[in-house]
Amino acid sequence: MTFAGAKGSVGTTVGASHPHLAGLPAGRLMMTEMDPDAVAAAADLVFSALPNGTSAGLAPTILDAGAPVIDLAGDFRLSAESYPAWYGFEHPTPAWLDEAVYGLPELFRERAPGAKLVANPGCFATAAILSCAPILAAGLAEPGPVRVDGKTGVSGAGRAALESTSFGATEDSIRPYRFPAHQHTPEIERGIELATGHVVKALFVPHLVPAVRGVVTTSYLAAAPGVSTERLTDCLAAAYEGEPFVRVLAPGAMVDAKRARGTNVIELQAVADGRTGTAVVVGALDNLVKGAAGQAIQNANLVLGIAEATALPTTAVYP
Amino acid sequence: MTFAGAKGSVGTTVGASHPHLAGLPAGRLMMTEMDPDAVAAAADLVFSALPNGTSAGLAPTILDAGAPVIDLAGDFRLSAESYPAWYGFEHPTPAWLDEAVYGLPELFRERAPGAKLVANPGCFATAAILSCAPILAAGLAEPGPVRVDGKTGVSGAGRAALESTSFGATEDSIRPYRFPAHQHTPEIERGIELATGHVVKALFVPHLVPAVRGVVTTSYLAAAPGVSTERLTDCLAAAYEGEPFVRVLAPGAMVDAKRARGTNVIELQAVADGRTGTAVVVGALDNLVKGAAGQAIQNANLVLGIAEATALPTTAVYP
Amino acid sequence: MTFAGAKGSVGTTVGASHPHLAGLPAGRLMMTEMDPDAVAAAADLVFSALPNGTSAGLAPTILDAGAPVIDLAGDFRLSAESYPAWYGFEHPTPAWLDEAVYGLPELFRERAPGAKLVANPGCFATAAILSCAPILAAGLAEPGPVRVDGKTGVSGAGRAALESTSFGATEDSIRPYRFPAHQHTPEIERGIELATGHVVKALFVPHLVPAVRGVVTTSYLAAAPGVSTERLTDCLAAAYEGEPFVRVLAPGAMVDAKRARGTNVIELQAVADGRTGTAVVVGALDNLVKGAAGQAIQNANLVLGIAEATALPTTAVYP
Amino acid sequence: MTFAGAKGSVGTTVGASHPHLAGLPAGRLMMTEMDPDAVAAAADLVFSALPNGTSAGLAPTILDAGAPVIDLAGDFRLSAESYPAWYGFEHPTPAWLDEAVYGLPELFRERAPGAKLVANPGCFATAAILSCAPILAAGLAEPGPVRVDGKTGVSGAGRAALESTSFGATEDSIRPYRFPAHQHTPEIERGIELATGHVVKALFVPHLVPAVRGVVTTSYLAAAPGVSTERLTDCLAAAYEGEPFVRVLAPGAMVDAKRARGTNVIELQAVADGRTGTAVVVGALDNLVKGAAGQAIQNANLVLGIAEATALPTTAVYP
Repeated sequence: MTFAGAKGSVGTTVGASHPHLAGLPAGRLMMTEMDPDAVAAAADLVFSALPNGTSAGLAPTILDAGAPVIDLAGDFRLSAESYPAWYGFEHPTPAWLDEAVYGLPELFRERAPGAKLVANPGCFATAAILSCAPILAAGLAEPGPVRVDGKTGVSGAGRAALESTSFGATEDSIRPYRFPAHQHTPEIERGIELATGHVVKALFVPHLVPAVRGVVTTSYLAAAPGVSTERLTDCLAAAYEGEPFVRVLAPGAMVDAKRARGTNVIELQAVADGRTGTAVVVGALDNLVKGAAGQAIQNANLVLGIAEATALPTTAVYP
Repeated sequence: MTFAGAKGSVGTTVGASHPHLAGLPAGRLMMTEMDPDAVAAAADLVFSALPNGTSAGLAPTILDAGAPVIDLAGDFRLSAESYPAWYGFEHPTPAWLDEAVYGLPELFRERAPGAKLVANPGCFATAAILSCAPILAAGLAEPGPVRVDGKTGVSGAGRAALESTSFGATEDSIRPYRFPAHQHTPEIERGIELATGHVVKALFVPHLVPAVRGVVTTSYLAAAPGVSTERLTDCLAAAYEGEPFVRVLAPGAMVDAKRARGTNVIELQAVADGRTGTAVVVGALDNLVKGAAGQAIQNANLVLGIAEATALPTTAVYP
Repeated sequence: MTFAGAKGSVGTTVGASHPHLAGLPAGRLMMTEMDPDAVAAAADLVFSALPNGTSAGLAPTILDAGAPVIDLAGDFRLSAESYPAWYGFEHPTPAWLDEAVYGLPELFRERAPGAKLVANPGCFATAAILSCAPILAAGLAEPGPVRVDGKTGVSGAGRAALESTSFGATEDSIRPYRFPAHQHTPEIERGIELATGHVVKALFVPHLVPAVRGVVTTSYLAAAPGVSTERLTDCLAAAYEGEPFVRVLAPGAMVDAKRARGTNVIELQAVADGRTGTAVVVGALDNLVKGAAGQAIQNANLVLGIAEATALPTTAVYP
Repeated sequence: MTFAGAKGSVGTTVGASHPHLAGLPAGRLMMTEMDPDAVAAAADLVFSALPNGTSAGLAPTILDAGAPVIDLAGDFRLSAESYPAWYGFEHPTPAWLDEAVYGLPELFRERAPGAKLVANPGCFATAAILSCAPILAAGLAEPGPVRVDGKTGVSGAGRAALESTSFGATEDSIRPYRFPAHQHTPEIERGIELATGHVVKALFVPHLVPAVRGVVTTSYLAAAPGVSTERLTDCLAAAYEGEPFVRVLAPGAMVDAKRARGTNVIELQAVADGRTGTAVVVGALDNLVKGAAGQAIQNANLVLGIAEATALPTTAVYP
């Protein structure tokens, strides 16, 4: 790491702000004001982890200065017309939206090498799209409404102190939030369309549960007639054969976000329910790794031509 | 309390087995072998909290001895033909199934006074049926598949020591379990049919989250054309007007299992999603109170002609 | 409840700010600016739960207006000379310090009836003083240094959103804080002196653990020669005989903060360690009840001449 | 890994029993009955993680067959005469007790290379001995009673399903256990004697808190006259200068078990309390890493002549 930009913490080290990193070389780096030219000069590649709406203005200045950018915000994941409704702003640099690669390597790997701008997917969107795309592509479910029920630990809300994610408000709390307007809704739709060609409508209902890390999405699709759990499972297994970060479970086995904790792995399981004509696909991942920073590294590896699995753990810190 | 039956703990007091109850009169009660005649002689009403499959044989002997029974197991909640498939046993006393009142007072209150046998509903079924029945009855959703996504704390699994509900296996774990074969599935179907006359198929996908108490069900129904969040909310509010234990939230407000903790209250919220034609109803309750013991007391109050809300808290232990 | 003073939340109801109270009569009360005369006119007794340092100025104006005050801050617990060093302010109304009754009913009950001003004790101080006073008074330990190791859940830090008590920073975190300068140190010393006449020096080392409610203090005293676990236990049992809110455990039994959760009970256990000449007394309580609001009600009951145990639960919400 | 011995799980793979390891080469290893000769033939070094009392009989048979053993039980940590009182058995192979190296590398590193048998220290003992030994060796505290207050997550109790460590019994529970008879008491005494020559008596009071991983020990020593926090800190810093796994915090900074989670690091902080003449040293580590398996690897590295820090993380999984 050669540059750490900041706002409130300018003038302190990364390690002072994140004490568990104090012992790493990166921990001794002083945080400074963002300067696109300085960043581009210092770095082979830039990870941008800014609030939604800030990145859209800033990332292009870094790109213009010559460094590729992996953007962890939502600012380059959608088409321009989606931003006012779902993110509340008019996109300031729409030309870059066409340039941006949607960074879900398991589905769009071939577009990453040499890319200038990668839109790193959202945590829920990663889980839901990897769950549904192969099933829809194979015609095992109808391209009708995709209903995604999400569960997440609190770390997805970031590090800022909020009463709603305090320990007191979170212990024994189970509650939905920000639906049906959550911004991962159009991202799920677009990712599925990019991967399968099917234009679908999605409903996404996220819930907060008393965990720090962990996302589980339970996706409900209208199953094609006669589809069995085995066929769904085989479809997923074939789609992700050889993938280092996807674990498709055998019929009857159940995913667990804890088994993905601290890793870049997503676990997937599928069940066909003949009684209601439903194909259920459940995905579990660590929202801070496969759902954010880990997938960003996976994308960076691809952009730079490094072996894709470099520096990405697959064995959980368990228990 | 006049009698406490037990198996493994015979010869110890209730308070020795449950130290937090040691200070109550009931805590000093010695636990003894079940004896239907002794129980019926000692009690005006019997709460039966036996494992599924045990109650079906035992409750009738108490009933024959003359005491009404509130059964907390699943043994009297379904019709006879459902037991082999969903519970794995042939029902031994099917005649009592017709006699049993399904104890969801908000929907079936008038059948409780003087009832001999009350089938106390399951925690998930309580939440899902109270969520869906008014909407289906009013025609605001089609009587098609009812998809219920459940989240629960571990106390629903009982007190027995299991590796799967140990603290180590539960912290930061989010995982589905026992679906699509969970035994609350037919109970949801039957409860909806009893309340609305509609024969529906249900899919129920429960998930374990790192909480002790708390159940949230998120029910997905096919909305009737043009239905709005307001109409769904009004429908629920009208259905449960004056109910001491149902809190229907205003549009936009979100339920929270923590606000129901330690109480006999269920919180309900409804959202219409026009994009996918879905009516979503979310219910939150404390699985040990409204989802079990509290509702049992509510039913006992009704059976015995005591004021229905007696001894049932409505203010949560929060935080 | 007839009056609810506030600062940031003026103009909203108690129930809007604390949704779990929305259903209570108090929940419908509108919060207004503090007005000592209005409060005193409206109330038979005032609970003051202001930040440390604010109460010292405000409570006397209410007292002058004629209403007795139970103060939950630390502002009337010490002698005047302690405030600069331990609380960082010069006490503005030192005359009231002599008037104030230290509200630990089990030790100072006789001073409460009719009192004008009660200093409601701190959570840790309550546990430590009730643990040590009888042992020191009986001469079973030397009046030398009292070393108190405290463990607490996060709710003691209040409801304000802090990064340090966020769910993310708290899960799996065990850490000491603010020692040796914690302001409960002189309170422990003073409480012991008031109760036993012994002037002792205390060391208090609090630790935060991943719980919401719960305080455990482990107090280490220099045992008098030959003292046994049984003698320590008998001493505590005799001191607290008949007390409705003190549970002295038999030798070998271990206290548990969870068994006190939601109650006004403190559990106490004592152990003599002959090898090191130590008398260990462990106390466990709910910091929000016996450690704060519950004890305040207990004091209010005494001040007003109501039966002392009124409205104070003794059975835990468990599990 | 070349051999995995088991008892109940013979015939299944390591990965089947520990699903998060399924993807590793070790995960595919079949577990077989313990056979000392087979183990010794297959392995350069054997990690023995058997219940206390089993290892004492089995480890010598492996040693006789020619492989060095790192023993994670308590069976080779004490002198022979301590076993009946603290572990409840007569030691069957006392000759090996003299041979065994107490595996605390920061204090006894020079004895490990080429050792046949290493007694891997207990988690609490590791924290307490590393906390106290330098202070006592330097004469900054008197070699009088060492009082150690411990706090731990539940994983120290192992993986077996126990009601006491279920999620239901652990959430919001804070409680002491098994004191003053905990078997780490004599281990702390012996480790301090080995390191400093001082014969001291220890009192150890462990407490369970609602965490999975994490141990904090707060050690109370009688400070030598005039000792300051700075001198205590300097003493620790000098003693552990250059140690890759010890982090001595500056005066005023507070240790946090969470910052050590998933790492082989121990954090230490010291405070002198002049008012009570106490030197307080607080240590925090991950009981499964520096407190068990990580330190075992550290010892194995030393025994085999591999670089000591190989395969041992120092950056926490945080949050």
